Amino acid sequence: MLDCAIIGGGPAGLTAGLYASRGGLKDVVLFERGMPGGQITQSSEIENYPGFFEHGKTGMDFMDSWQEQCFHFGLKHQMEEVKAVRRAGEHFVVEIAGGAPVEAKTVIVCTGSTPKRAGFKGEDEFFGKGVSTCATCDGFFYKNKEVALLGGGDTALEEAFYLSNICSKVYVIHRRDTFRAAPSTVDRVKRTANIELITDASITEVVGDAMGVNGVKYKDKTGEEKLLGVPGIFVFVGHNVNNGVLKDTDGKFICDVNENGQVVVDLRMRTSVEGLFVAGDLRMEAPKQVVCAAGDGAVAALGALSFIQEQA
Amino acid sequence: MLDCAIIGGGPAGLTAGLYASRGGLKDVVLFERGMPGGQITQSSEIENYPGFFEHGKTGMDFMDSWQEQCFHFGLKHQMEEVKAVRRAGEHFVVEIAGGAPVEAKTVIVCTGSTPKRAGFKGEDEFFGKGVSTCATCDGFFYKNKEVALLGGGDTALEEAFYLSNICSKVYVIHRRDTFRAAPSTVDRVKRTANIELITDASITEVVGDAMGVNGVKYKDKTGEEKLLGVPGIFVFVGHNVNNGVLKDTDGKFICDVNENGQVVVDLRMRTSVEGLFVAGDLRMEAPKQVVCAAGDGAVAALGALSFIQEQA
Repeated sequence: MLDCAIIGGGPAGLTAGLYASRGGLKDVVLFERGMPGGQITQSSEIENYPGFFEHGKTGMDFMDSWQEQCFHFGLKHQMEEVKAVRRAGEHFVVEIAGGAPVEAKTVIVCTGSTPKRAGFKGEDEFFGKGVSTCATCDGFFYKNKEVALLGGGDTALEEAFYLSNICSKVYVIHRRDTFRAAPSTVDRVKRTANIELITDASITEVVGDAMGVNGVKYKDKTGEEKLLGVPGIFVFVGHNVNNGVLKDTDGKFICDVNENGQVVVDLRMRTSVEGLFVAGDLRMEAPKQVVCAAGDGAVAALGALSFIQEQA
Repeated sequence: MLDCAIIGGGPAGLTAGLYASRGGLKDVVLFERGMPGGQITQSSEIENYPGFFEHGKTGMDFMDSWQEQCFHFGLKHQMEEVKAVRRAGEHFVVEIAGGAPVEAKTVIVCTGSTPKRAGFKGEDEFFGKGVSTCATCDGFFYKNKEVALLGGGDTALEEAFYLSNICSKVYVIHRRDTFRAAPSTVDRVKRTANIELITDASITEVVGDAMGVNGVKYKDKTGEEKLLGVPGIFVFVGHNVNNGVLKDTDGKFICDVNENGQVVVDLRMRTSVEGLFVAGDLRMEAPKQVVCAAGDGAVAALGALSFIQEQA
């Protein structure tokens, strides 16, 4: 029986592992199919993680420096895919793909969310080199430059506002001529001088060279292909919340989940099920920032420690 | 009129400044009487901030590396003491000790809390060198060693449990023979094999040498002075929540505050007053960890950005 099973090896899971093992829990295992690190390893530069400010360091360099620390205090890594987390009386069972299930007194789920890809040509090739899914993370790299943004939902338009404070111009490309976002938000977009709406349009290709993106090709209702000479394109066409491990055999979630599929938590990262915690982008209102996910992980681990002590 | 006034320069305030200025807000000012850095600068070693794992680096070294980054994106530092934050119609007024008041569209208060000192001899001299006020931070430095702990409240006993998972023995020194903590918590303490209660006792002196603490002297009801040969003493005699700047002239708080004087927040660090945010140890249920305070600061700044955009 593990004291604590941690599912997912991004910043939230690693920090949970650091705090749980350093806090004296025995048998703390982080389940992650591949190398830990998370989405951030795909970034070409990090400059907003407090205390880490070395020009030219990539997301991979960054997470490398976490590994030694997080495993130093006794956290173990099991390179396996978790299929599901289930309650079994007073404890939990972690079901492993192609392996024996593992019992745990507490579980911290940190499986995050995955930004959806739009599917245009060059999107994968230039991901992290001009194609981004996070304005807060990458907007500043385009200070006083023009950028494009794809999407028309609330998140897309909020991110357009964020970029409009930093960039000289934001081209919002949207496939319809109406918006799913709230009317008041759409009005604000129309009133913002440096946001230009390009509606009824879709991106056909992102082009660039070894230095990164230098243009976005799109087709609007005229059918003609046009080119925006921008060094950056932000894609906001939704997120897949990776909540699958929390689904029971009957398809229902084992804990409360909101209408977006995000897990409902309190300030202590407790879910509706005692002993089950979540941390990072999987939770409601996640700000999707490394430092926030790490903070969540620390809090969740302290909660798991308290929970075990209270049961003793 | 500032876009954002940040009160307090610990990890929460600095990170709020990083995110607010990097997010494109103009005129973001951090008010801190002295050098930014916060409580953590008093620590002799840091090993639980994810990504910062260099043996022998002190809290001062640690916060030094934050400074350049947090001020790089345009955050300004005003070395003044803030007396109060007040609402003035749609915005806020920050009152400065001996200076002109400053207007701001949003305010993020990050004034933290200050652990109370017990007042025994050697407490200040050995603070950060064996005297600690944070088990989560420093417990691991005493792995498999004996430690002493002063206090009898809920927090003190919770911290005793935390230490009992790591240390070989925890001596809990308490000035009464009854406890303010919940009876169930006291029962658990009594059942924990490696926690020893020393009641009706008070610490007279902490002794040590250039290497740090090596003993704690106390007097119990016999009146005789006794010595515990421990390298660490954890002091949990309460916290002063630094909420003074949120008090109005009539003595009432301008936002909701709980029974412990901590500011009530939601997951986005919003207070009960629109445009007013708090971050770090000043808030309810603060885990009092650097990475968590930093995460709070980032979230609060993103909230301030959104708030200003919505007003535009």
